[in-house]
Amino acid sequence: MAILVVGSVAFDSIETPHGKVDHCLGGAATHFALAASYFTPVRVIGVVGKDFTAEHEAVMTRRGIDTKGIERSNGLSFHWTGSYSGNMDAAKTLGTDLNVFETFEPKIPDAYKDSEYLFLANIDPVLQARVRSEMPNVRMVCGDTMNYWIADHAANLAKVLRELDVLLINDGEARMLAGESNIVLAAEKVLALGPKTLVVKHGEYGATAFFSDRSFGNAKLSRPFRAPALPLAEVVDPTGAGDSFAGGFVGYIAAHAEDELSDDLLRRAMAYGTAMASFNVQEFGTERVQRLTPEEIAQRVSELQQITTFEDAPIPLRG
Amino acid sequence: MAILVVGSVAFDSIETPHGKVDHCLGGAATHFALAASYFTPVRVIGVVGKDFTAEHEAVMTRRGIDTKGIERSNGLSFHWTGSYSGNMDAAKTLGTDLNVFETFEPKIPDAYKDSEYLFLANIDPVLQARVRSEMPNVRMVCGDTMNYWIADHAANLAKVLRELDVLLINDGEARMLAGESNIVLAAEKVLALGPKTLVVKHGEYGATAFFSDRSFGNAKLSRPFRAPALPLAEVVDPTGAGDSFAGGFVGYIAAHAEDELSDDLLRRAMAYGTAMASFNVQEFGTERVQRLTPEEIAQRVSELQQITTFEDAPIPLRG
Repeated sequence: MAILVVGSVAFDSIETPHGKVDHCLGGAATHFALAASYFTPVRVIGVVGKDFTAEHEAVMTRRGIDTKGIERSNGLSFHWTGSYSGNMDAAKTLGTDLNVFETFEPKIPDAYKDSEYLFLANIDPVLQARVRSEMPNVRMVCGDTMNYWIADHAANLAKVLRELDVLLINDGEARMLAGESNIVLAAEKVLALGPKTLVVKHGEYGATAFFSDRSFGNAKLSRPFRAPALPLAEVVDPTGAGDSFAGGFVGYIAAHAEDELSDDLLRRAMAYGTAMASFNVQEFGTERVQRLTPEEIAQRVSELQQITTFEDAPIPLRG
Repeated sequence: MAILVVGSVAFDSIETPHGKVDHCLGGAATHFALAASYFTPVRVIGVVGKDFTAEHEAVMTRRGIDTKGIERSNGLSFHWTGSYSGNMDAAKTLGTDLNVFETFEPKIPDAYKDSEYLFLANIDPVLQARVRSEMPNVRMVCGDTMNYWIADHAANLAKVLRELDVLLINDGEARMLAGESNIVLAAEKVLALGPKTLVVKHGEYGATAFFSDRSFGNAKLSRPFRAPALPLAEVVDPTGAGDSFAGGFVGYIAAHAEDELSDDLLRRAMAYGTAMASFNVQEFGTERVQRLTPEEIAQRVSELQQITTFEDAPIPLRG
């Protein structure tokens, strides 16, 4: 089943302890789409400038991604400049040139209207809400946001949150959105704002899915699910890892549209999200995720299972 | 099989967003011993002052812990003052009064000489090495250390590391000891210094066990094992969680001395360590770990398994 993703298609200039790249293809929608493309058809809505060439577009079309929703505008594409140091747990933003992205007005091509899954990447919540309202028949709406919208556009963001099946954000954003430092209590508060499921991403430590008590497909869940990240000897560039996680997570669910949205399915979706994020960080930009094989992905999910599985066995404890 | 633990028995004055306690019973050896006491007999070597009362001692003896190795000295016991704020990921030390601990000279009672497991809590590596040399017949030696010893007592610490079966430290200590920010590469370097297994504790995110390629009992392991922490709505005081983890981990292994030291056993030990750490943080000091039931511990290990288990199922991916 097709996923429609709305978000940034951008160029990133990134410096990490492993090197430096200038204007590599990036953006939340790009990372999401590439990761999701291994699971299901993906359609992208975004805006780029004249610097977005046929070669850049081919990175997506080679993966079967539908790019007709990417608008070409006069000017330059969104360009982010950032650096990472030490253990690369946080990016330092050195420059954010919104360029053509500043006046982005998502337009949904008619051919996209039958998309059954919608991912609202991190953009102005006003635009997220508009896109969502123009896609009334989607089966599932997932989305992301960031500290800027949480702090200064709370009312607009609140409208989007009420429409979400799954919100995927990081620890800091969850704490900020809830005004609560304990992540379990923060998750409860965020779920009360609307999302049926909250996926909190912990960077190098993995991610946790929190479920509301309300029904969600056929899954009635309350216990969280926690997937640690795969320990990797080469972490070259974390940029986009969260979007690749989301691409794997939503992609996996969309590929199983015929199945019940069960506990098992959501847990596996977390595992596939974890796998896609792990590939994302191993090279700069989208390089690694552009050229995965189904075998590599399956292997990594299997590795996640191997490093987390233990057989419980009752033992006599000394009371 | 009995575990001998050598380390601090102390009083902690702690302030967290959940309240404040003055001179509550703490110290690495105390936290370790209480957690391990649910699995196997524990013997403690430490030093306390006149302020350590029969009531304090009873906290340990009620759990069957042998306290005859706790020396009474003139003066006051080691007293740590610290505070936590926000998500409590790091303690701010406000005061460290070593008192009688400053001149601590561990003496091993004859009755302790047949202990088969040894835990060297975070003390001067010179003392750790001496205790280890006086216990030549132990089956397994585990230990902890901290940034102070890593930075300024490297040569002495190196001698201890060569003697360790398992080193349990946190992320920052592992990175510092290895001089390497990537945790997988750091783990390789630390294992090259001697320990057969390295357990890296990630605070609220759990812990990872890294195994050297050398034989370790009958376990030949290279893939790490990662246990996320249990997401808890009440995190009251993280002080001692690492020592409670170590107590659960070593305690579980010591309780299975008759079994092969297999992959399965070490994974379960990580799970029990995780469970004990999770109880530790739910109340101030040692309060929660003093009064656990075997059922509660088993229940928490089961919860850990439930929140991390997923069934992998091969799916057709789009290559």
